Amino acid sequence: MNVLLVYAHPEPRSLNGALRDFTIERLAAAGHTVEVSDLYAMNWKAVLDAEDTTARLDAGRFDASLDSKHAYKNGLQSADIAREQQKLMRADMVILQFPLWWFSMPAILKGWVERVYAYGFAYGVGEHSDVRWGSRYGEGNLAGKRAMLVVTAGGWASHYGPRGINGPMEDILFPIHHGILYYPGFEVLPPYVVHRTSRMDETRFETIRRELGERLDSLQETKPIAFRPQNAGDYEIPALTLREEVAPGRVGFAAHVA
Amino acid sequence: MNVLLVYAHPEPRSLNGALRDFTIERLAAAGHTVEVSDLYAMNWKAVLDAEDTTARLDAGRFDASLDSKHAYKNGLQSADIAREQQKLMRADMVILQFPLWWFSMPAILKGWVERVYAYGFAYGVGEHSDVRWGSRYGEGNLAGKRAMLVVTAGGWASHYGPRGINGPMEDILFPIHHGILYYPGFEVLPPYVVHRTSRMDETRFETIRRELGERLDSLQETKPIAFRPQNAGDYEIPALTLREEVAPGRVGFAAHVA
Repeated sequence: MNVLLVYAHPEPRSLNGALRDFTIERLAAAGHTVEVSDLYAMNWKAVLDAEDTTARLDAGRFDASLDSKHAYKNGLQSADIAREQQKLMRADMVILQFPLWWFSMPAILKGWVERVYAYGFAYGVGEHSDVRWGSRYGEGNLAGKRAMLVVTAGGWASHYGPRGINGPMEDILFPIHHGILYYPGFEVLPPYVVHRTSRMDETRFETIRRELGERLDSLQETKPIAFRPQNAGDYEIPALTLREEVAPGRVGFAAHVA
Repeated sequence: MNVLLVYAHPEPRSLNGALRDFTIERLAAAGHTVEVSDLYAMNWKAVLDAEDTTARLDAGRFDASLDSKHAYKNGLQSADIAREQQKLMRADMVILQFPLWWFSMPAILKGWVERVYAYGFAYGVGEHSDVRWGSRYGEGNLAGKRAMLVVTAGGWASHYGPRGINGPMEDILFPIHHGILYYPGFEVLPPYVVHRTSRMDETRFETIRRELGERLDSLQETKPIAFRPQNAGDYEIPALTLREEVAPGRVGFAAHVA
């Protein structure tokens, strides 16, 4: 497999740095080809702006969507964006690895998503009509590929449990799993999460390497999260609400998992 | 009141730009003092890194938390960070205004949070013991202040409804409302959300201005979201899970609202 690891941590001599190195070695040893986008090391431009295209649609007014569409369609994207899109297209499996900062991904990785996920590439794809609302949520240019998050968090597992004060980790990650990965077509594997990172010793680190290693060894067999595809009958179009008979009475993020 | 508007949109000639100008005028006309952090116009540095302190704790290894703690405590923070913290301390009310990009705030605003929310300022505040887990979630340096989001989204309201495909807007915003605003002490007002931004005409824009105007006129009277304070008895410490008798049987984000 071709694996793309998108990694967002400022310090190589950190737990995240160690897990990145472990991941690369483990995957390579299993015969996979690994590409790495180390966003801090690449000095990745985090901020989406008018500089992301080499020729604006309208010199007066920048429109994040329409300028992205124009640039993507006509080969006018900034070179760093096009390079990341090519890496995504080459990959069979994408891993996003990051520390959970303020209950989401670091800004540098969010900016990678915003800039690389061009109109026509990751959104605005496919037919928009009375029966289809674009090729998204299960369809799209990244369909057929798999993705997984590797996340570190300072808080305890109980803080992120069903009744934990931070909210359940699966709900905190839903906008990334469903809204960023499933949206353009990825099948999304359950995440690998490390809690309580400030209390690390050799024993825990060994356990983490074993667990993460097992996850990396089984990327091709692991069952993805069963998100409901948008255009296969579960949703009313264009309201895009679950049909009455689907998960009756259920609301919220969990209702979108079959 | 002193109001701080933190605004994150790349194009002044946009719906967001118009709503920003409307907000400033409306608040000023009501006698409030308005400060604006226009992150794109300020060319805000979005990426948290070792450059955020003028003197590292350890020249070898950068630690996002410990270096932030050291820099905040000893006046060694980068000047742009200290300036934003001063604006927050001067404010009675903070408004974050942004377009919803990939189900969260734009990277430039996420990076504002990551860099301005220093250890000792927004987290790592107060006593950590068997009976208290820091001054957070209802307590902290920003207690006594109010905050509100003004958010624009391309999708329809139904797409963000209780059974809408994107997930409910209140759940999408929970990590910001609860995890970024309530965490350091803000009382959080219900958000003002504009949907379907690509279909805007003069009539809709008038309605939006009227609604937003009413929200701005009533900032001091509006009832905040009733998030449960961490240290007032609803949570077991240190597990930080809701006590059995609190919202019995309920799980997920909504359980943390009384």
